[in-house]
Amino acid sequence: MPVWSRLIRFESTDSRLLRGEPILPSPDFDVGTTTEATRLQAKVIAGQDIYDTTGKTKVTDEIVTVKKLLGPLAQEDVPIVRCIGLNFLKHIKEGGRTPPPFPSVFYKANTTVNDHGAPIVIPKICQDEQADYEGELCFVIGKDAKDVPEGEAFNYIAAYTCGNDVSSRKLQRDPALAGGVPQWGFSKGFDTFCPLGPCLVSSSLIPDPSTLKLTTRVNGEVRQSEGIDDLCFKVPYLVAYCSQGTTLKAGTVVMTGTPSGVGFAMKPPQYLKPGNEVEVEISGIGTLKNSIVFT
Amino acid sequence: MPVWSRLIRFESTDSRLLRGEPILPSPDFDVGTTTEATRLQAKVIAGQDIYDTTGKTKVTDEIVTVKKLLGPLAQEDVPIVRCIGLNFLKHIKEGGRTPPPFPSVFYKANTTVNDHGAPIVIPKICQDEQADYEGELCFVIGKDAKDVPEGEAFNYIAAYTCGNDVSSRKLQRDPALAGGVPQWGFSKGFDTFCPLGPCLVSSSLIPDPSTLKLTTRVNGEVRQSEGIDDLCFKVPYLVAYCSQGTTLKAGTVVMTGTPSGVGFAMKPPQYLKPGNEVEVEISGIGTLKNSIVFT
Repeated sequence: MPVWSRLIRFESTDSRLLRGEPILPSPDFDVGTTTEATRLQAKVIAGQDIYDTTGKTKVTDEIVTVKKLLGPLAQEDVPIVRCIGLNFLKHIKEGGRTPPPFPSVFYKANTTVNDHGAPIVIPKICQDEQADYEGELCFVIGKDAKDVPEGEAFNYIAAYTCGNDVSSRKLQRDPALAGGVPQWGFSKGFDTFCPLGPCLVSSSLIPDPSTLKLTTRVNGEVRQSEGIDDLCFKVPYLVAYCSQGTTLKAGTVVMTGTPSGVGFAMKPPQYLKPGNEVEVEISGIGTLKNSIVFT
Repeated sequence: MPVWSRLIRFESTDSRLLRGEPILPSPDFDVGTTTEATRLQAKVIAGQDIYDTTGKTKVTDEIVTVKKLLGPLAQEDVPIVRCIGLNFLKHIKEGGRTPPPFPSVFYKANTTVNDHGAPIVIPKICQDEQADYEGELCFVIGKDAKDVPEGEAFNYIAAYTCGNDVSSRKLQRDPALAGGVPQWGFSKGFDTFCPLGPCLVSSSLIPDPSTLKLTTRVNGEVRQSEGIDDLCFKVPYLVAYCSQGTTLKAGTVVMTGTPSGVGFAMKPPQYLKPGNEVEVEISGIGTLKNSIVFT
């Protein structure tokens, strides 16, 4: 378990880039709803390795005021983002599919990692009615994990956060584009396409992630609303499956898949437009907010 | 252009882990053929950033003897490996396909990066008649690249090397396994599945990579033999395509795709077995050698 309960990364009012343990005004306070005017305070976390459990990294007594909340993880904190597709049972069944025997896995480079509150920048290649959100529960690996038995999986999870697996549907799904090979990684791999936040919540506060509930909103309209208990492949199984013959380096973020309600499945489809505000809220974690910009 | 012509990484006879410029016994000497008995010598390269062009990184006058040749890049030197599928014209046409309009792209985490001379370790999940080689020309990005026009692409390529995109064919291709989504990243993503080497060759020595020739051998038997001029999507186009809205960080390795002659396409298929020796040779670069181990 990390030495903090919640971790935020932020610019302080004295213009330092810091990590801190937020001081919550109430136990169920959502740090993602804070603004500059809210004057959220935090105790500074000192130490480079945020997953350290030996006491080198500490929550200090220095209290600072948050000027601008960023994402909890900088790009260089994340070796890679490992993502699971097709993982919510209702979503699979409503599409007329049967649950697959194994998870589908794809990757996002750490260059996709984006801050809470920062714009999602849609590049020219996917501005034509295809940009879409995918609200997802993410977990963060706290120590190198390889060939982990399912029963030991929780020992390797340091924290949870919200993520948005921003996707370009034509690039992802059109079989004519790349020789019939779906382009999950490429279509979801542009800079800013992986917002994470608003904070990390220590796994000590979330002993059972299946009790969480995920809600995604676009301009305030609820698009996705599902319990994490609907996951086809549960969190401990994902650690075991993904770590087979494979080192999950400390800091690796795993996105667990998105429930039904994405824009391209709406009738008619509703793709992201400049100026849209996307929120991914998970109970017990908070709300990740990002706006859409076309460049 | 980097300050070295060729770069090797090795353990010296005085037991230091070093990078160096090899002193070639003859101009066309293949450093991948060296053994401990060969006593290859090298000038030590000093400096952390091997792509530095400002003079901070230097080829020194200190000459050392190579005890054990490693791969030119450690895992931590490589932010991510970006891979191109379906990219050799003859291979596409012999499979009855038409060339796709765009490259297919997938990723390997840096945890796959493996040394020249080190074993490729096949994990239990893919030991059942499916492990396969893919010899590939790789290029290395020397400075952060984003939205690069094709005409400027060569300015961003620091070096070339050989790579083996080790693949598990059932996991990659069986549509029943993961809901019909081909698992290119996962099936090619196990630890040790991306041997690179035997050296980096500066792009100053390879002004036109289409003149190179690639040969893959298993236990000495030629399996793949093709000119890089058969690439469907050429190297400069790949830099432009992959950098759209996407930062290719310095150190990123791009694998350009494999020609015909992989094991699963043979009749009958010939998969990798324990004790096999796989060599990927590219003219002007050298021979990358790795053995196969089942764990």
